[in-house]
Amino acid sequence: MNISQELAYYISEALQFYGIQDIVISPGSRNAPLVNQFIRSQKFNCSSCTDERSAGFKALGIALATNKPVALTCTSGTALLNYAPAICEAYYQGVPIVVISADRPSEWIDQGDGQTIRQINALGSYVAKSIQLNPAKTEDARWLIKRSLGEVFCCPEFAEQKRPIHINCSFEEPLYGDGNRDEKIRFREVLNTHSIDETKLAELTNNLNNASKVLWIVGQLDEQSGKEVSTYLSKVKSFAQHLIISETTSNLISACDSPCIDRSIVGIEDNFEEFQPEYLIHLGGAIVSKKIKHLLRSNKDKYTIRIHNTGYDEDTFKGLNLGLNGQVSKTLSGITEKLQDNPKSEYRKLWTRQIASSVELHHKYLNSAPYSDFKVFELLSKNLPENYKVFWGNSSVIRYAQLFTYQASNKHLANRGTSGIEGLNSTANGYASSCSDPLLLVTGDVSFFYDINGLENATENLKILLINNGGGNIFRIINGPDSMEQFETFLETHHNKNAALLSKHFGFEYMDCDKQENLESCLTNFFKSSNKTVLEVFTPRLDNPEILKAYFRSLKQQ
Amino acid sequence: MNISQELAYYISEALQFYGIQDIVISPGSRNAPLVNQFIRSQKFNCSSCTDERSAGFKALGIALATNKPVALTCTSGTALLNYAPAICEAYYQGVPIVVISADRPSEWIDQGDGQTIRQINALGSYVAKSIQLNPAKTEDARWLIKRSLGEVFCCPEFAEQKRPIHINCSFEEPLYGDGNRDEKIRFREVLNTHSIDETKLAELTNNLNNASKVLWIVGQLDEQSGKEVSTYLSKVKSFAQHLIISETTSNLISACDSPCIDRSIVGIEDNFEEFQPEYLIHLGGAIVSKKIKHLLRSNKDKYTIRIHNTGYDEDTFKGLNLGLNGQVSKTLSGITEKLQDNPKSEYRKLWTRQIASSVELHHKYLNSAPYSDFKVFELLSKNLPENYKVFWGNSSVIRYAQLFTYQASNKHLANRGTSGIEGLNSTANGYASSCSDPLLLVTGDVSFFYDINGLENATENLKILLINNGGGNIFRIINGPDSMEQFETFLETHHNKNAALLSKHFGFEYMDCDKQENLESCLTNFFKSSNKTVLEVFTPRLDNPEILKAYFRSLKQQ
Repeated sequence: MNISQELAYYISEALQFYGIQDIVISPGSRNAPLVNQFIRSQKFNCSSCTDERSAGFKALGIALATNKPVALTCTSGTALLNYAPAICEAYYQGVPIVVISADRPSEWIDQGDGQTIRQINALGSYVAKSIQLNPAKTEDARWLIKRSLGEVFCCPEFAEQKRPIHINCSFEEPLYGDGNRDEKIRFREVLNTHSIDETKLAELTNNLNNASKVLWIVGQLDEQSGKEVSTYLSKVKSFAQHLIISETTSNLISACDSPCIDRSIVGIEDNFEEFQPEYLIHLGGAIVSKKIKHLLRSNKDKYTIRIHNTGYDEDTFKGLNLGLNGQVSKTLSGITEKLQDNPKSEYRKLWTRQIASSVELHHKYLNSAPYSDFKVFELLSKNLPENYKVFWGNSSVIRYAQLFTYQASNKHLANRGTSGIEGLNSTANGYASSCSDPLLLVTGDVSFFYDINGLENATENLKILLINNGGGNIFRIINGPDSMEQFETFLETHHNKNAALLSKHFGFEYMDCDKQENLESCLTNFFKSSNKTVLEVFTPRLDNPEILKAYFRSLKQQ
Repeated sequence: MNISQELAYYISEALQFYGIQDIVISPGSRNAPLVNQFIRSQKFNCSSCTDERSAGFKALGIALATNKPVALTCTSGTALLNYAPAICEAYYQGVPIVVISADRPSEWIDQGDGQTIRQINALGSYVAKSIQLNPAKTEDARWLIKRSLGEVFCCPEFAEQKRPIHINCSFEEPLYGDGNRDEKIRFREVLNTHSIDETKLAELTNNLNNASKVLWIVGQLDEQSGKEVSTYLSKVKSFAQHLIISETTSNLISACDSPCIDRSIVGIEDNFEEFQPEYLIHLGGAIVSKKIKHLLRSNKDKYTIRIHNTGYDEDTFKGLNLGLNGQVSKTLSGITEKLQDNPKSEYRKLWTRQIASSVELHHKYLNSAPYSDFKVFELLSKNLPENYKVFWGNSSVIRYAQLFTYQASNKHLANRGTSGIEGLNSTANGYASSCSDPLLLVTGDVSFFYDINGLENATENLKILLINNGGGNIFRIINGPDSMEQFETFLETHHNKNAALLSKHFGFEYMDCDKQENLESCLTNFFKSSNKTVLEVFTPRLDNPEILKAYFRSLKQQ
């Protein structure tokens, strides 16, 4: 099967999966792979209509009569433009038409080739969503096709509000050839939990009750959401087949089995098969840990469920099967209420052993850890007063942060929507100014100096722990950058700046520290101060990465 | 004539003006005003075609046969979408079709009214340019209609490259009614001077030679352009009917009659009729002076010529008649070579008397001017060393700057493309780092503190004169803001900051001054220093505006 036939096969499978029965076909050569697959599958009522303008209105009529979405397909060039009047009518009337236009390979657009025009987004504001598909040359590209088809068919404006959608597919020659394949493709489904189908919910919990490996992974949650979610997850922890991992930013405290993903998974890479779930349930926002994403993405057989209220279904772990879109606590309540234990499962035991062992090794390493970024985070976790909220900086700060644990009364914030460094001082400043609790910003030097104007007019409840390691230390931690020429100048941006003058300029009290002997007393004074204060801790930029790497090596010695 | 008929009249006039003879009309009610005006004018070959898709292709055929642009008009709703196939063909074939679609008033879009869809930009990437026209309820709205029609018909992709254009017009009811008007409307013309028509050039210079009042106004020019333009303008100054005004930022030095527009025009408001030109020639980029814009915009009878190479014709003075688009020095060479004196004209004498008198009053005021922003600029203009380049800040800085004159070897820069304040330190830093001459940045405190990170890694040839008047003093100069509640907090943003610590943090030498006695010696030391240096001059924020206003009053006493 050539790649154009394969692309058409995916589309044909998606049409079946999402319940389309009628297709109005306008003839052409570029859409031959589509026509071939539609006919071959014997699953559709196909009719032919030469004039695309008429075809569009004919599809509209069928959809109105059957009360189901109808697909349209045409060849490349202006053919597509003839659909516009009918699609516009369908848009305003609320009739779900699926336009599937064949296109030429994009590199030939505007080069004078026949029937090669700008087709992407050609139906502009008259469709709910439009996607572009290209024949797949890699596994990732196949995932993208499957994912994009899932996204366009599951988008609420099509699935619920019945607006037309547009799938533009570039086909490469050969357009003809063997089109046989029998593999069924499983696309994603989305349930809107404000009107959830009780049968589907029962089916889901039944599956979870019979499963022996269910892994919950929780990303960022704000304080209030963390609290709400905790009440449901505490119950989940009593079942032998369930385990919950999360990060500092989830604000789950004791409701999860480990809030330190990166620390807890060291060593499991080599026998991940044991640890990998049958069901993966993904809750909350961004996940920091690259390692867990890598491990879970490589597991292709899991059934992945995403519970969220963001209105779009991120496929963080490659292969999303079910999106549960709506008020999160309502969804969780619906699921957890019927959950039952599967006493035969050893999954929870396996994971908790692993987690306990990592905790033990973690504490062992602390005793020997020299002065470094790592040490600063350790002492911070020990000395952070009750009721402090912490706004964690990005880059290496957020990664160090989740190697340690904090008191239940501490709450955690971070800009992990896009993980930028440009507004950390400003966001912390804004938060502190509207909050009566003390707020600690923990930030690196690059972020701190970048957003220096963010210190303007700060309130006295803002404390800043600035970890100055002389540049972007993250580039020494991750693999690759340090092999680049002029690495220190253009990636690390090594400098000898300190924040003394800047802090004073903006009215902050300033303290600093550059050795372990003083660090604990500095932290104590820092948290005692009743003023807005910057504590700048200078750490050894060349040693830091080694000390962190040694930490991870030490966790493997189990 | 109702406003819908009037809008249609403008369009009919524009079609005639730009040489369109054939119109293919599809019937409808919303486009009735257009049809009425087209028929009434008796200037067009009108044909009727019910199906808009056929109408589009018919227009294409006519345009191919006549080798002229052809207009199409249709009613509102999906009618327009049927043009898409023909317009797309015309786009790729290069045939100039003018689509004129009638639309409903925009407030009714997406409200369920019949034939009311999203029409703006509906032909998306298949037209060279599209404009939206609404019936005019004010004089400015009429100017906008005329200007937009000029812009769409003169855009090079239509006029030269023969791509289709789209005019979408919202008509209000009543759609019918008296349509008679005889006034001819003069639209703009654009000549591309790389292939200028010799006859048109001869006609233009002939007009200028017979005119008795030709005013040249020159906006921002970079150093090199200023030099090139100067050689042509020096000649212009020998003719009795010509006068050239400009600003510091034009880098024209002695090639203009006054580089201080704001200073030179004080007092002429009351008898502007004498001073107003028959021909206005506008050269260069942005003009700072609001006063001259106001005066010249109010003069509706002038014939305005814009000489530029920016590819689009700004109508800074309302009523652009001719755009000369191309290499500026070539255009100027073509025009000035045939210019002749009109000895009967008194225009040059009138203006030079006014300018001389303002110079005299200017010097008189200087003797009595107290310590203030104004005084700082005066002393700067006297003490600025030879060969310095000056990067002027925006807001009040650039306005003060052009009240004074500088040595011929000084060159002037400013971010007047958009006149923002956010990147002044950074732009000056970048310029200084790539230039061997010394560069002086003159900036206010708000801009300086805003772009504080712009001081990073500056080279030693950068000097910064920071005029700190404790906030945005511009808001005390212009009329209006100071009547607002909480003016000091939200507009002026009054503060007590100084730049001492910040300057040191970024490795600058720092000097300051807060009284007139020291200012001159401070400036001398500042310019003597071989380091990158910040000189911060503190001025009295409450007195500054009064001293400037007194200055302008003193210029009026002639």
